[in-house]
Amino acid sequence: MENTRTDLVIDCHGHFTAEPAAFHEFRRAQVAYAEGRGTSPGAYPGISDDELVEIVGINQLRLQQERGTDLTILSPRASGMGHHVPGQQTASEWAHLSNDTILRICEMYPENFAPVCQLPQTVDGDLGPVLDELERCVEAGFVGCNLNPDPSGGRWTSPSLADPWWDPLWAALERLDVPVMIHASASCAPSVHTTGAHYLAADTIAFMQLLEGDVFERHPGVRVIIPHGGGAVPYHWGRFRGLAIVRERRLEDLLRNVFFDTCVYHQAGIELLVEVIGTENILFGSELLGAVKVDDPQTGHAFDDTLRYIDALELDPASRAAVLGGNARRVYPRLDALLTRQGR
Amino acid sequence: MENTRTDLVIDCHGHFTAEPAAFHEFRRAQVAYAEGRGTSPGAYPGISDDELVEIVGINQLRLQQERGTDLTILSPRASGMGHHVPGQQTASEWAHLSNDTILRICEMYPENFAPVCQLPQTVDGDLGPVLDELERCVEAGFVGCNLNPDPSGGRWTSPSLADPWWDPLWAALERLDVPVMIHASASCAPSVHTTGAHYLAADTIAFMQLLEGDVFERHPGVRVIIPHGGGAVPYHWGRFRGLAIVRERRLEDLLRNVFFDTCVYHQAGIELLVEVIGTENILFGSELLGAVKVDDPQTGHAFDDTLRYIDALELDPASRAAVLGGNARRVYPRLDALLTRQGR
Repeated sequence: MENTRTDLVIDCHGHFTAEPAAFHEFRRAQVAYAEGRGTSPGAYPGISDDELVEIVGINQLRLQQERGTDLTILSPRASGMGHHVPGQQTASEWAHLSNDTILRICEMYPENFAPVCQLPQTVDGDLGPVLDELERCVEAGFVGCNLNPDPSGGRWTSPSLADPWWDPLWAALERLDVPVMIHASASCAPSVHTTGAHYLAADTIAFMQLLEGDVFERHPGVRVIIPHGGGAVPYHWGRFRGLAIVRERRLEDLLRNVFFDTCVYHQAGIELLVEVIGTENILFGSELLGAVKVDDPQTGHAFDDTLRYIDALELDPASRAAVLGGNARRVYPRLDALLTRQGR
Repeated sequence: MENTRTDLVIDCHGHFTAEPAAFHEFRRAQVAYAEGRGTSPGAYPGISDDELVEIVGINQLRLQQERGTDLTILSPRASGMGHHVPGQQTASEWAHLSNDTILRICEMYPENFAPVCQLPQTVDGDLGPVLDELERCVEAGFVGCNLNPDPSGGRWTSPSLADPWWDPLWAALERLDVPVMIHASASCAPSVHTTGAHYLAADTIAFMQLLEGDVFERHPGVRVIIPHGGGAVPYHWGRFRGLAIVRERRLEDLLRNVFFDTCVYHQAGIELLVEVIGTENILFGSELLGAVKVDDPQTGHAFDDTLRYIDALELDPASRAAVLGGNARRVYPRLDALLTRQGR
């Protein structure tokens, strides 16, 4: 049965980015209230079941079927997390609503989606509410979480990920046995584009923070996914190897704990990723519906249909299966357990 | 004679990063005074001729000869530009001293170095003093300048490069016919490493600013070099092509005005750069003495000996000559004129 297990195509990086207007309106009212620009928004009943079915059916589920992937690890819109908005209560209520929406989708389509949560981080707050929400979500069935390395949205005012300030979170991730994707939210600087600049910058900055510190020596059970193919990291692997050597470290040692997704939207980029990082540390991901929602005129296919780039590599079957699903099952043990219960 | 012209190996990205202790001490005193932490520093006589000869001889000049490059386009230490330090007078005095030091080196070794200047940018100041210093330097023989897209050192408080605020600078670059390298200075956020994160982030952010705007439609004569192989840009070329299409633009059109250097410290990265960007838009550069000053144990050679990676590509002679020198002569016409006067 080993073939069946590893043949699943698991997209580790999907976002629910097809929220209806009322969802966005609630958030706008909530932010306005938090920023002192409006009255407290009324209770929001959430998206109705019928509407959720309709939205997911014409978006994530349709694309999954059209592209031939089996399961998407789904989390709330990353740019919508908005950790820069003031106030812990707002952050917690927003994470609660966003995560519960994800969970409802995953319960509607348990063979198609598995949930990953956002965390109620804030610029000035502590990790207590973050740990509470992480725990609540994992108990409810979430298989991982997204961590914003920069709640300020581009000012980088938080302690480095290597700072002991984050230790309670790393300890919780080890204890709960869930991995973390390091994913920024929207840029607050008008000059810094969110998906075309801030995300890639954040991926690179976060990786360098991990390289400078000893998080994985203190927390060997932590598994980190750097999205968007690792930002600039694989392209500059020589630079990072050199910076590691200067620190009397080996960059390769980070690969015990650090993984990269395949959200790189052209063949040459995917080839570099696989050549430099190796298939053991790469998880298939497409980021859909994400940064680029158009077709590539050079290929006639969607830029974010990343399965095509993997297929074109002609990897040996074991490596292909690892990238497309096996590594995800290893990095997300709670997902593996879920799939095993489903007989997949 | 065409062969002789194109056979020169021109390193477009060198920094004078071997300043003696007294130079650093003067700067520390100057910054302390500017920040209200000290008294006004006395006049600094500058590095003596003998000391400059000695320092350059054992650093930049030695490496140039050992590695087989012919000429280095030299600018002040990028992380030392420090545009976040308050006060226009400090910025102007510091740029003046730094640029004059570069010019002295280039006048001592006119066949080995050509000067590029830093600009006296500040967080809150206007472009007047920047244009004054640019003009002064070009009149003195400088062939280009370095522009910091983020004088705040990581807070990204400045207008986007696409904002009309920068138009006087673009107009001056066209009029003086000098190119600009977009190069950040040191990161002011302790969590953001300067050479391992902030530089690569700034390259990527600046490129996206240019992609979002119409600088080159308004100023078609401007030539921009994005250093460090373009940050994350070539690796994510598909993402940027898609983001351009969404804006009803063609990413390829940017290549009329935008060039990338080869400061990418491993073979796979250089291969991707050449495959994606093409040899017409790549300028040989090593960044030395820069971010990584150690040998790669996998090759036995210095990480930043980037000529070896180019050589290993086995480009056709015309493409190799373009990358190694021909493109630099095209992008830096004042360098071309200088070399022509030298009969090279």
